[in-house]
Amino acid sequence: MSDCIFCKIVRKEIPAQIVYEDDVVVAFKDINPAAPTHILIIPREHISSIAAAEASHQAILGQLLLASQKVTAALGIEPDKHRLVINTGADAGQTVFHLHVHLLAGRNLGWPPG
Amino acid sequence: MSDCIFCKIVRKEIPAQIVYEDDVVVAFKDINPAAPTHILIIPREHISSIAAAEASHQAILGQLLLASQKVTAALGIEPDKHRLVINTGADAGQTVFHLHVHLLAGRNLGWPPG
Repeated sequence: MSDCIFCKIVRKEIPAQIVYEDDVVVAFKDINPAAPTHILIIPREHISSIAAAEASHQAILGQLLLASQKVTAALGIEPDKHRLVINTGADAGQTVFHLHVHLLAGRNLGWPPG
Repeated sequence: MSDCIFCKIVRKEIPAQIVYEDDVVVAFKDINPAAPTHILIIPREHISSIAAAEASHQAILGQLLLASQKVTAALGIEPDKHRLVINTGADAGQTVFHLHVHLLAGRNLGWPPG
């Protein structure tokens, strides 16, 4: 999508602090961090949300979750102390309509999750 | 795993309010709901956490996220107003070490997510 900010990050048209990328996903620092470590993991392909994903995206979605392991390894943080969050819709806090997984770590994470 | 509570739910050895299931995942109501709608979506296969998932689990992980669409359809709630949360490790709030996705909906969800 030409005017999607995350597509522009994928295409390196606007800067981001990328911490991991492969042929399916790109992971970069959230510019408004909610934790000492706050990374956004996104698919290169424009999928607007989980609600808009199709069955054909199954492999990409699996890769998106597995990429959390690559991100913690790239950052040198503990692999098993983090929270992944996916917001769907503005009411749930989705602000960019390009599917993204928030990876939060580095502090105690309370419950409920928002 | 013989003593895993979620494996017991998958095997129907202990009761749960199951709202959706297929050959890969089971979704049921959280007994301590943090929102009007609070469902746990789990893989039938015992995977202890996202950190412990292997590349061979990619399809299952994709199915786990896509199942959120099946859950909202089964419940008759809006498909695009929810938050998915995956805790990894006790410090992040993981209390059962069988991978599960929390689906929360039915109220405004604040930020940060815990």
